[in-house]
Amino acid sequence: MRRLWLMQGGMLVDITLTKTTNFQWRHLIADYEKKSEPIYNVRRDDKRKYDAIFVGGGAGGRFGSGYLRARGGRQLIVDRWPFLGGSCPHLACVPHHLFSEAARELDLMRWFSGKLWFPDATHLRASILQMVQLFKEGRGSAHAFMNWQSKEQLDLEYILNVPATVIDNHTIEVAGERFQADNLVLGTGAETVFPNIPGTDLHGVYDFVSLIEELDFEPQRCVIIGGSKVAIEYGSFFQAAGCPTTIVARKPLMRTASLHHVDEDLRQYVVDGMCKRGMQILEGVEPVAIKGDGNGNAKEVIIRNMQDGSEESLACDFVFIGTGERPKSEHYREVLGVAVGEKGEILVDKHMRTSVPNVYAIGDLIGPPMEMFKARKGGMTAARNIMGEPYEFDWTDYPDFLHSTYEITWVGLSEEEAKQRYDNVVVIQMPPKGVPHEDIPLPCAEGTMLYAFMYPELTGFQKAVVEGNSRRLLGFHHVGFGAKDAFQYLDYLMRQPEGITIDEMGNMNELFLNPEHFIQLCRLRAGSPNLRDL
Amino acid sequence: MRRLWLMQGGMLVDITLTKTTNFQWRHLIADYEKKSEPIYNVRRDDKRKYDAIFVGGGAGGRFGSGYLRARGGRQLIVDRWPFLGGSCPHLACVPHHLFSEAARELDLMRWFSGKLWFPDATHLRASILQMVQLFKEGRGSAHAFMNWQSKEQLDLEYILNVPATVIDNHTIEVAGERFQADNLVLGTGAETVFPNIPGTDLHGVYDFVSLIEELDFEPQRCVIIGGSKVAIEYGSFFQAAGCPTTIVARKPLMRTASLHHVDEDLRQYVVDGMCKRGMQILEGVEPVAIKGDGNGNAKEVIIRNMQDGSEESLACDFVFIGTGERPKSEHYREVLGVAVGEKGEILVDKHMRTSVPNVYAIGDLIGPPMEMFKARKGGMTAARNIMGEPYEFDWTDYPDFLHSTYEITWVGLSEEEAKQRYDNVVVIQMPPKGVPHEDIPLPCAEGTMLYAFMYPELTGFQKAVVEGNSRRLLGFHHVGFGAKDAFQYLDYLMRQPEGITIDEMGNMNELFLNPEHFIQLCRLRAGSPNLRDL
Repeated sequence: MRRLWLMQGGMLVDITLTKTTNFQWRHLIADYEKKSEPIYNVRRDDKRKYDAIFVGGGAGGRFGSGYLRARGGRQLIVDRWPFLGGSCPHLACVPHHLFSEAARELDLMRWFSGKLWFPDATHLRASILQMVQLFKEGRGSAHAFMNWQSKEQLDLEYILNVPATVIDNHTIEVAGERFQADNLVLGTGAETVFPNIPGTDLHGVYDFVSLIEELDFEPQRCVIIGGSKVAIEYGSFFQAAGCPTTIVARKPLMRTASLHHVDEDLRQYVVDGMCKRGMQILEGVEPVAIKGDGNGNAKEVIIRNMQDGSEESLACDFVFIGTGERPKSEHYREVLGVAVGEKGEILVDKHMRTSVPNVYAIGDLIGPPMEMFKARKGGMTAARNIMGEPYEFDWTDYPDFLHSTYEITWVGLSEEEAKQRYDNVVVIQMPPKGVPHEDIPLPCAEGTMLYAFMYPELTGFQKAVVEGNSRRLLGFHHVGFGAKDAFQYLDYLMRQPEGITIDEMGNMNELFLNPEHFIQLCRLRAGSPNLRDL
Repeated sequence: MRRLWLMQGGMLVDITLTKTTNFQWRHLIADYEKKSEPIYNVRRDDKRKYDAIFVGGGAGGRFGSGYLRARGGRQLIVDRWPFLGGSCPHLACVPHHLFSEAARELDLMRWFSGKLWFPDATHLRASILQMVQLFKEGRGSAHAFMNWQSKEQLDLEYILNVPATVIDNHTIEVAGERFQADNLVLGTGAETVFPNIPGTDLHGVYDFVSLIEELDFEPQRCVIIGGSKVAIEYGSFFQAAGCPTTIVARKPLMRTASLHHVDEDLRQYVVDGMCKRGMQILEGVEPVAIKGDGNGNAKEVIIRNMQDGSEESLACDFVFIGTGERPKSEHYREVLGVAVGEKGEILVDKHMRTSVPNVYAIGDLIGPPMEMFKARKGGMTAARNIMGEPYEFDWTDYPDFLHSTYEITWVGLSEEEAKQRYDNVVVIQMPPKGVPHEDIPLPCAEGTMLYAFMYPELTGFQKAVVEGNSRRLLGFHHVGFGAKDAFQYLDYLMRQPEGITIDEMGNMNELFLNPEHFIQLCRLRAGSPNLRDL
């Protein structure tokens, strides 16, 4: 099987003409992760100029390429890794989801310790190291699929396992060879901002990247510096795994600018839930230093109370940096002179055009939100414009989510935001205002059924925000399980020119029990000319 | 606390003027489950005639009442149980969801037996009896909420814990008192059809109702007669709990008329998955008799092969009837002379009007689909028409789902159905056609992440069906977790006059990882003028 590509021979490993299966790709990628030779999938018999070269084959580069190719254009992706898909399946979204699922299952097991069929969980400890290992052993199949799909189904051209050096706005160099295109599309992502304090180089200090690539011991006590989504998500996993975790944050969790549209009651439900599960959350504090044990291993984090300046030491063997990411734009700034913003983000317009003619930028490289939809749709937007369609993409508002041990999802305005803009705001929520969480096991559906019958206060929280005069839905919010997928479509419905009204919601066909109960709850009020809270 | 309602005194327990909390309702209902006195919540000071009396306070009666009340009408619900909400939170959807969640968690524990943090599951046995007990102890809080919400939030009037006798099309009698209304809305549901074979009265033979109300031993070996949704759902739970289960069905599972729109490949994935988990599925066989052990307990089911007539005995101590339900229409046929169909269903038009003037019927009483959306929207439809709005409800097509250990959801046409109607049908599916399930851990998201990294063949299956010329989506299909909620909105989008196109899908904002990958997969093809499978 492996001969397939070795047979291509010579310095250039070229699989352009070989139909390669997912299975074969897995082995090829595993092989090339240890090598420095590029993998070529380039139609050298095609003499047309490239419409675009995508520098970086992550979500944006791959989706942009797919769209450009589907439009009849010619494209080339270059990526430093031997696979397409970028950091998501390699280091970011996919391990995050794996760990968040582990957190959810571990949490369930702890609440039901010794009850029903669940074992005693008093001494339950999941190995973080083993979970990292499980992910690393398995991630190759997603890599393989990206390469396979991109080549066999999307007809893309690419060169992998080699960095691209940008020469000018039409030219890149790859392994000593120059490639030219009418346009460049830059999409090489971002990297964690490590706080500027002593000790971040100690053993035991990780961000989400090095956690995957370098973790080499079983953490026993964790301190997370920063209050980002990553902090909440990974912290919830560490805690659920049985590694006591403290989050150290300057601002209240989920009160950062990037997590807009979150009401205080929802925030409180989530943060209280984290505390209820044993996490320590220290807000209004900043890190001062990470100190070592003399052998190069982290052993404590010194923090300072931002109000009174007092300092405190948090003992730990594991420090996780969750202070956010910064676009990696230096190379492009130096070579092309692209304009960048305060945080290093390449500035683009709604066509994804940078300040340099024929150079587009997409994905995390243009700053927040560092979310998948923006990367992929940015790639698509660049492709459409390159192919002559003056298409604009506005990513200022979007559905958003994070995991604690729950899925937390929201789109549109919070109740508070809505009340600042409109006089007649009505909310439809569960539990209803004034009804304690422990009095009513709602919302509930798949994922919260067991809780509903043993711990009704753990089944979640949900809210829909309605403008009472137009009867339009302004926002949806949910803590629980199984509603995230739907928020994609709720976002779309709210964006329609006429939006979506409580009456239209009430006319839909629900699938009962549905994790968010918006359709049926809307129906219970839809009959009324004068809307009231529910 | 309990004095609150006892203080109302006399024969008539009247809580009309008492604001009663969820907590108080729980105790009141528990108390009245043992009594035969009615609970009155009737505004006797209001001298207006009722616009409608809803006979049956299940989903349809409650939602119809809510709508009618919101429209300014006056209504009365009468229900034989001391709570509103009907069979769903008492016997049907809610226990089904609880058991299906148990099945999912037990199944996960079995696959991961002795791996990661999971205990050895070799001898894992969950108690079915205990789960039934858990449900029964907890269901009161949903009951309480229904009563509370209906009274305090929806301003409904109702009489509970007493059956209504219909006198004529304007009159009912309740505990010796007559109530009159302009209209009657009948919604008293359906009941299991027991097969006409000897032995269904033996101890150990249950349907989903008597399972909840009467199970009194721990089943060790189960035979399910019938291949309905209920058979698949409860059977998957029994098997996952550790009670080996055989399903005995005339037709292939999921090939019944009520489960239309299911492609053979999806069906096969689901049924194979059930077999892979140890269930025995016997198709093309019919039950002949249930035989007892001489002490009145079921000990075997005799079945006959429908092709060759050969008989076989299946030893068991637990027989579960999953042959479907039949509307309970006798009383209405006798008293009112309403026209009924072949299977006892009350015949209604799209306004929910029966053959008798001023009499409407809703819910399971009018036959399949016996689903929540139809009950609730039927109630709403009756209410709108009663209040003078000539509103029509068409329930011939709808999103649908069932549970095995997975959530299986579908809406619109199957690939096969689409190909019968259109020349240019394109499918977008995961895994793609020709790629074995074990080669690619997709689809995956919350609920399948652990499987993705250990058992990629278990992560599910999905398919979108597209009409290639109009580019409209014709159907969506999903096996996995967390996509069910979204199908409500996919159904709505497909129903729009212009439908929803692959291009519009590709323009949406996904929340990655999303359980169904429809948005991003549509985007990968949306750029192309000539659509191809993906």
